[in-house]
Amino acid sequence: MKALYFDSQLELREVPRPQPKPGEALIRVTLAGICGTDLEILKGYSGFRGVLGHEFVGQVVECDAQEWVGRRVVGEINVSCGECSLCLWGLSRHCPHRTVVGIVNHDGAFAEFLVLPVVNLHAVPDSIPDELAVFVEPLAAAAEVMEHVRVAPSPRAAVLGDGRLGLLIAQVLRASHSNVIVIGKHASKLELARSLGVKAVDVKRDRLPAASLSLVVEATGSPEGLGEALRLVEPRGTVVMKSTFREPAEFDTAKLVVDEIKLIGSRCGNFQTALNLLRQGSVNVQALISKTFPLQAGLEAFEYVEKNECLKVLLFPDSGADGAAT
Amino acid sequence: MKALYFDSQLELREVPRPQPKPGEALIRVTLAGICGTDLEILKGYSGFRGVLGHEFVGQVVECDAQEWVGRRVVGEINVSCGECSLCLWGLSRHCPHRTVVGIVNHDGAFAEFLVLPVVNLHAVPDSIPDELAVFVEPLAAAAEVMEHVRVAPSPRAAVLGDGRLGLLIAQVLRASHSNVIVIGKHASKLELARSLGVKAVDVKRDRLPAASLSLVVEATGSPEGLGEALRLVEPRGTVVMKSTFREPAEFDTAKLVVDEIKLIGSRCGNFQTALNLLRQGSVNVQALISKTFPLQAGLEAFEYVEKNECLKVLLFPDSGADGAAT
Repeated sequence: MKALYFDSQLELREVPRPQPKPGEALIRVTLAGICGTDLEILKGYSGFRGVLGHEFVGQVVECDAQEWVGRRVVGEINVSCGECSLCLWGLSRHCPHRTVVGIVNHDGAFAEFLVLPVVNLHAVPDSIPDELAVFVEPLAAAAEVMEHVRVAPSPRAAVLGDGRLGLLIAQVLRASHSNVIVIGKHASKLELARSLGVKAVDVKRDRLPAASLSLVVEATGSPEGLGEALRLVEPRGTVVMKSTFREPAEFDTAKLVVDEIKLIGSRCGNFQTALNLLRQGSVNVQALISKTFPLQAGLEAFEYVEKNECLKVLLFPDSGADGAAT
Repeated sequence: MKALYFDSQLELREVPRPQPKPGEALIRVTLAGICGTDLEILKGYSGFRGVLGHEFVGQVVECDAQEWVGRRVVGEINVSCGECSLCLWGLSRHCPHRTVVGIVNHDGAFAEFLVLPVVNLHAVPDSIPDELAVFVEPLAAAAEVMEHVRVAPSPRAAVLGDGRLGLLIAQVLRASHSNVIVIGKHASKLELARSLGVKAVDVKRDRLPAASLSLVVEATGSPEGLGEALRLVEPRGTVVMKSTFREPAEFDTAKLVVDEIKLIGSRCGNFQTALNLLRQGSVNVQALISKTFPLQAGLEAFEYVEKNECLKVLLFPDSGADGAAT
């Protein structure tokens, strides 16, 4: 089968189709999304080697649990051992033995097929088409801000960063009755935010006053974002950090201590929450799709993402070549 | 009166005795303590110029509110406006207009007298002698870890740093039924911790495994402490940061995000909580006194702190020279 394989550089390769073991499902990928983490992996983040991609929707084509065969699914990306203390405490997303689809020791979704344990699967309701379902993983990560922070609706919240994740988080916060603005620097993305009913300011035009926000979500994807988040948050306020990047970040810890800031790291989220948000229509994800490429043109898709002021770029395998699996 | 005055360097100076305004009290200092923050100020932290010192116990000698005159007191160090929104919300310790005794635009306690608003004062019960009462400010800061974090007793907690503040925090955590160890590198301080019934390990001998602790309090006073705290804390665990220093700290934010760590800055605390801990005898502060110097020998006291593996060094003004104020 064809796959986008990363091994110090990204290539479109012919690789063996993965074989499901007992308890696993073989999934034919219908649509997959390119994420900021994929771009960081290309720069060396996580030291990954293998098939890239962790945002996807697909159809189960082979599985010993027959009830899954033929179902449309999305899949949790952390593949956990199920036996360690963190798994037993319900923190399987933090299992120290885990692999992570397309990120750590597990081939990913930029391929015609991928394999995942059945326990990682969530059936997609008929009312949610593929173009929306492919957003479940990043939307879950966005919604994690609410689950993890457990804040009351915030009177003055901001999302730093007008990218894919930033615009999802802003919509989630708004759906949770927070008074939120997006702070970004890309005119077209800020305009899109406004068209989604989200308040947006251009950092080049309006520099918000220091210590003026109760909640700041850092989703710039750059090491400089944290310093700005700490500047904006008020004493005893909360900064949620979503960006992962390779370089260490430097910041003034005295500000954190003196102002008694809470800085909370946040990563993956609850898929069921994301499916519910899509079903209720509380979050518009369709507007974030910039372009869709065939998997065959995957390298071109990555070039497009790197060069253009775009949001979500999707890949679809043209599974004609490799034939149907069933 | 005599005072230890900092103006790019520390000097013993003759300065005018401060004059209390309406609502303020003139306090004759009985004992004052040297804190890590004082040492950081000497290196440039906070850009302070004036009389140093913020840990003290004293006696009110002049005040328009007559009921305070003659009382033994300790004093909150944040002098707030009382009118801004943070003050009105009960966060006066974070008032943006505040001065801070011996740290920001307010002469401190390494002097024969200091002036403080009456609202900052707490009467010291007779059962608490001066040598214990002088610890109220740092003990309040230590107890803030519990107030701010609002954790249940932690099954696996550690305090990084075996200094003055570290040993106070460890005792507070123990008094709050946490299972806590101190991680340090000074044999004599670790021995003292053990003599106080606090478990202690030498970082040079035992390197605790990564991701093994639910709560880590960083009290090393050095920029390297944060990295080690993040190494030790388990996924979804909490790091409380107490150290303030001048340099920015650099750390791997990907670890914070991927492991969804809470990093919480913590500074000053509740004086009443500290007075209660002393009254109940839950925390042994007397054991932490390394040496007491007359104010006159203040420069020598600072040299002693810098050169020796010591804990709390106290100063007492020999008020014979300047005469009684009443």
